[in-house]
Amino acid sequence: MKKRSGNKPGSHSVVQTCDWEAGPSKTAKSRKSIIYKHKGDCKWAGIKTETYKPLKGNWNKIIRRVLAGDALKTKSHVRYFEIAPGGMSSFEKHKHEHIVIGIKGEGKVLLEKSTYKINFLDIVYVSPKTPHQFLNPFKEPFGFLCVVSAKRDKPVNITK
Amino acid sequence: MKKRSGNKPGSHSVVQTCDWEAGPSKTAKSRKSIIYKHKGDCKWAGIKTETYKPLKGNWNKIIRRVLAGDALKTKSHVRYFEIAPGGMSSFEKHKHEHIVIGIKGEGKVLLEKSTYKINFLDIVYVSPKTPHQFLNPFKEPFGFLCVVSAKRDKPVNITK
Repeated sequence: MKKRSGNKPGSHSVVQTCDWEAGPSKTAKSRKSIIYKHKGDCKWAGIKTETYKPLKGNWNKIIRRVLAGDALKTKSHVRYFEIAPGGMSSFEKHKHEHIVIGIKGEGKVLLEKSTYKINFLDIVYVSPKTPHQFLNPFKEPFGFLCVVSAKRDKPVNITK
Repeated sequence: MKKRSGNKPGSHSVVQTCDWEAGPSKTAKSRKSIIYKHKGDCKWAGIKTETYKPLKGNWNKIIRRVLAGDALKTKSHVRYFEIAPGGMSSFEKHKHEHIVIGIKGEGKVLLEKSTYKINFLDIVYVSPKTPHQFLNPFKEPFGFLCVVSAKRDKPVNITK
């Protein structure tokens, strides 16, 4: 089922379908404005769920949804990550910074050797080169937005 | 009252006070990681409420809270805007893009000549040069995050 509104010539796309490949890519190429409707539970029409990273590593039970990235060619990228109970992101460091915003459940962030709790709408600024990891030791899923620059270096994994 | 944790040498700041000037600025200069705790109602410890723009214009009943900006020297800026019932942002255009995420109440966005509703966690990508305005015709406050590049051009106001 597909349903869109505001997609007549000259107007902008409102994606209300979960069919990502047929959704925003055409619009993104034309650099028109676009709205991704929230379907509930941190899922968005037109946004697919992806593997956290292509290669296995020191991460587990975590997925990514790219809300603004290469497809839109934005200078800032906004990604949503969700960690299932018991899961974690990579323990890593890099030169680029993170701006993280908790939006679902609660979780923790490890910054070097200290761990801090993250609740709804808490803001975490991870400064360049800081070893960091996001974790969910709780019983419900933990979801957060993560803003990064489109131009950024590759993370380096750290062994604990 | 001030209360902080994790602020011993070698660790990171968790700001739990509303005293902004004494809060993150010192930490920001040293480029340490920092956590701004959400106090509820889209207010954050260590984040001040600012005027939407320094000069009066075609906007009304709107405030800004900068969650990541010049103080942190991040390449991407994350701002929170809140529009009271009946208020609006400037009707404007610019070369830089916006990535907007609704997080409180509901509102509307005008993209050129078409208006679209924004609900909780809806994502709005405003492409470069698109005339746009955010409005709150509803009875409750409308709040949203807005991600932009730190390097960006100045908006040009548009007369309707």
